[in-house]
Amino acid sequence: MPSPLYVKPGPVENFNAPSWLDLPLKHVIESQQFNQASLNTIFEVARQMEDVRPGTPESRALDGAVMSTLFYEPSTRTRLSFEAAMARLGGTVLSTESAGEFSSAAKGETLEDTIRTVEGYADCIVLRHFQAGSAKKAASAASVPILNAGDGPGQHPTQALIDVYTIQREIGRLENFTVGLVGDLANGRTVRSLAYVLSMYENVKMYFVAPDVVRMKDDIKEYLTGVGVQWEEVDDLSAVAAEVDVLYQTRIQKERFQDRPDDYELAKGRYIVDAKLMALMKQKSVVMHPLPRVDEISPEVDSDPRAGYFRQAKNGLFAGQGGQGVLIRSG
Amino acid sequence: MPSPLYVKPGPVENFNAPSWLDLPLKHVIESQQFNQASLNTIFEVARQMEDVRPGTPESRALDGAVMSTLFYEPSTRTRLSFEAAMARLGGTVLSTESAGEFSSAAKGETLEDTIRTVEGYADCIVLRHFQAGSAKKAASAASVPILNAGDGPGQHPTQALIDVYTIQREIGRLENFTVGLVGDLANGRTVRSLAYVLSMYENVKMYFVAPDVVRMKDDIKEYLTGVGVQWEEVDDLSAVAAEVDVLYQTRIQKERFQDRPDDYELAKGRYIVDAKLMALMKQKSVVMHPLPRVDEISPEVDSDPRAGYFRQAKNGLFAGQGGQGVLIRSG
Amino acid sequence: MPSPLYVKPGPVENFNAPSWLDLPLKHVIESQQFNQASLNTIFEVARQMEDVRPGTPESRALDGAVMSTLFYEPSTRTRLSFEAAMARLGGTVLSTESAGEFSSAAKGETLEDTIRTVEGYADCIVLRHFQAGSAKKAASAASVPILNAGDGPGQHPTQALIDVYTIQREIGRLENFTVGLVGDLANGRTVRSLAYVLSMYENVKMYFVAPDVVRMKDDIKEYLTGVGVQWEEVDDLSAVAAEVDVLYQTRIQKERFQDRPDDYELAKGRYIVDAKLMALMKQKSVVMHPLPRVDEISPEVDSDPRAGYFRQAKNGLFAGQGGQGVLIRSG
Repeated sequence: MPSPLYVKPGPVENFNAPSWLDLPLKHVIESQQFNQASLNTIFEVARQMEDVRPGTPESRALDGAVMSTLFYEPSTRTRLSFEAAMARLGGTVLSTESAGEFSSAAKGETLEDTIRTVEGYADCIVLRHFQAGSAKKAASAASVPILNAGDGPGQHPTQALIDVYTIQREIGRLENFTVGLVGDLANGRTVRSLAYVLSMYENVKMYFVAPDVVRMKDDIKEYLTGVGVQWEEVDDLSAVAAEVDVLYQTRIQKERFQDRPDDYELAKGRYIVDAKLMALMKQKSVVMHPLPRVDEISPEVDSDPRAGYFRQAKNGLFAGQGGQGVLIRSG
Repeated sequence: MPSPLYVKPGPVENFNAPSWLDLPLKHVIESQQFNQASLNTIFEVARQMEDVRPGTPESRALDGAVMSTLFYEPSTRTRLSFEAAMARLGGTVLSTESAGEFSSAAKGETLEDTIRTVEGYADCIVLRHFQAGSAKKAASAASVPILNAGDGPGQHPTQALIDVYTIQREIGRLENFTVGLVGDLANGRTVRSLAYVLSMYENVKMYFVAPDVVRMKDDIKEYLTGVGVQWEEVDDLSAVAAEVDVLYQTRIQKERFQDRPDDYELAKGRYIVDAKLMALMKQKSVVMHPLPRVDEISPEVDSDPRAGYFRQAKNGLFAGQGGQGVLIRSG
Repeated sequence: MPSPLYVKPGPVENFNAPSWLDLPLKHVIESQQFNQASLNTIFEVARQMEDVRPGTPESRALDGAVMSTLFYEPSTRTRLSFEAAMARLGGTVLSTESAGEFSSAAKGETLEDTIRTVEGYADCIVLRHFQAGSAKKAASAASVPILNAGDGPGQHPTQALIDVYTIQREIGRLENFTVGLVGDLANGRTVRSLAYVLSMYENVKMYFVAPDVVRMKDDIKEYLTGVGVQWEEVDDLSAVAAEVDVLYQTRIQKERFQDRPDDYELAKGRYIVDAKLMALMKQKSVVMHPLPRVDEISPEVDSDPRAGYFRQAKNGLFAGQGGQGVLIRSG
């Protein structure tokens, strides 16, 4: 039966983290549903997960639980991170790489009907869809937790979880720091979500460093101003490199410049993170990237200890475990 | 080495259902191979499966067993139900979503050779194929059980299992009841198989309610008459709604009307299950549908307790578990 | 962090095969990295694996370990054999059937970056790629073991493992025997690798039996001569049938004769293993084939006890288990 998006979960048995008993989560749909308290709870579980070793009772915490990934567009990286999280906790995964070919969808079945069927087989559904709003639609029909793994130009809330968790792990705090968001700030849902979530924390200063054609949009800027976040648009990345604790680089997406190849080339070459730039950065800082990268971070940076992007990818595992643990055990 | 389709299984160790020791099943290929006794045995196991909870010894009944799904055409719903059944009993699944791209098939390998290879890796193979007769062909080569998950216009015996199991669960009996089969009765292999299997039971009366162009074919009608089953073709669904214990709705398949779009529209709108029709039905009755549905059941019916189609989908899990348990343990 | 291709592994806990403690393997990339000692160790583990039964502690040897298959071109047979090996030892598999659609690759991500991401989720990566040299490239970036499951026209070292293991199982020895390599010896990487590996063993005589257009290439012939292996090209398969202990048949690959259909038909029909040929062969001998076969082995041969090709396919399971056990436990 359909259930409200945010419900108070029932009692949790034999899993040693009472903290999430009070977590008002039922589904993970959008960044806006998190607050500092719920993020802290998930991060606490995620940190516990980092220590889980094969063969221990913790590695069997979700023994017998079944998760289904339902991917209407391929995203192997995202799918594997969710499936790995489940596997590391002893659960089982039913996997679909291309639910778009799901014969039922082709025959005109609604997403809601598909969800009502799959929930008969799984304790939790990870949904990736090409249409914004799909995750909310799925959650409205579902009696098991829905985890939104990206719905078109809409939300990708688990990426925001991973990013914030990574910042905390890398620089040791979530307040009183400066972040530079770089690259395609207009179309990247990742940076938009991240800016939103970071606004919850005390004294986070933001620099937006983007080619003209893909600047941060007004809605986010206005929101930040409204909640008192200090932000500034800058043109020269090297001018702020020495000041930022977190440099969050993103890919210029070629597909956004279809009819303007010259603009693409210009935007693409504009901000590159290379050894020269790294030399300007603080000793204690981190370079992040949601991946995949193309040329916007030079390979020479990979061996720098401040290159955090592959650790960030791996954090997807722990954040996923945290989220799944919370949802399935309290669901 | 190849083995006969129906063999007396050897002794079964440490699994608490001696009833299937005498079950003459080796493969599940076609509805005709079942009789009341074998169905009862599978249903008994299926009912036990409904009570299996994660963490119990029963949830590990197939620990160490490996099932391979070999799908030459996509059917995510069917695939997930089989894989979930295996997962819920502690077994492991090797999954193929598109064996059609199986490079070996493309290179000219016979289905028999493919089966002889895959049986080296799995204890049980779930086959979905686009060609009628494929399951029988596979079984003739296989030394592990083959479960037919649909072979083209041929058979889909596990759907019949699910349907009959659902009727028993929903109305509490398998004799002395009336069923209305509605929609595309000419092409729907589901309703054809169901009519066949229900004919084994005492005093089941059948109404066939179909648009002219897709009426139940003569072979089934003649068979039913021959074994003494009472059936009747009716034109007006609402005229029999009050009488049926089971209303089995099916989708009018657009692909059958390629050159006659007007006929399709006519057939499609002819029989809709909506709140008005539900008002005519008995308090104790059930609406079933093999899914996916398009418009033939109105969404307003979903919240009616007699709307059994999603429970029916979920029964695929238990019926699958029953079948797999029987086959793998006795195989 | 990247690691050298061949490293001395650290201590292994609670797994009862101390023999591989000294095995200098980190990745399985190419046939050339094996020697008699490493092959013997893997085969010893493989033989132990043949006796592993569900429910035993050995069937849980890789409990908690996670393997990811990363297939850039489909090969269901190969993928299933690796995944089955993992499943039979209690490990979990993260599966990709078509990493070619891996959205990151499409967006320009390098293989190295993909590997650095996936290694965050898995203890071991099985790579299949369409480009020669990909496995070595992946290994250079990886901190977890890479198993090469075929990289284009390059290597397929696990097939060579399977083949040599099969010869030992079938004829009881790896020295003092005669092998006939038949079919497409020019393009078949399988036979090229096999010839190379067999050259390590004492007194193995080789006959090359191939249509003119697809003869064994000079590089292998020169190598064999250089290391003192006795080989001979013969035209008439029946002339040597009585002498060989191992007849290794291969498929003439149609795709190699695109512009010469007549040549293909000629080459294809040239050497067929049928009942007549089997009558010439020794009582104690074996027919092998890497599969899939088309017409080059007649189905009438299948029931001959010397038809070893499906047992050979099944040996993929044990060889895979051996390799994975060695790599993951010592990695």
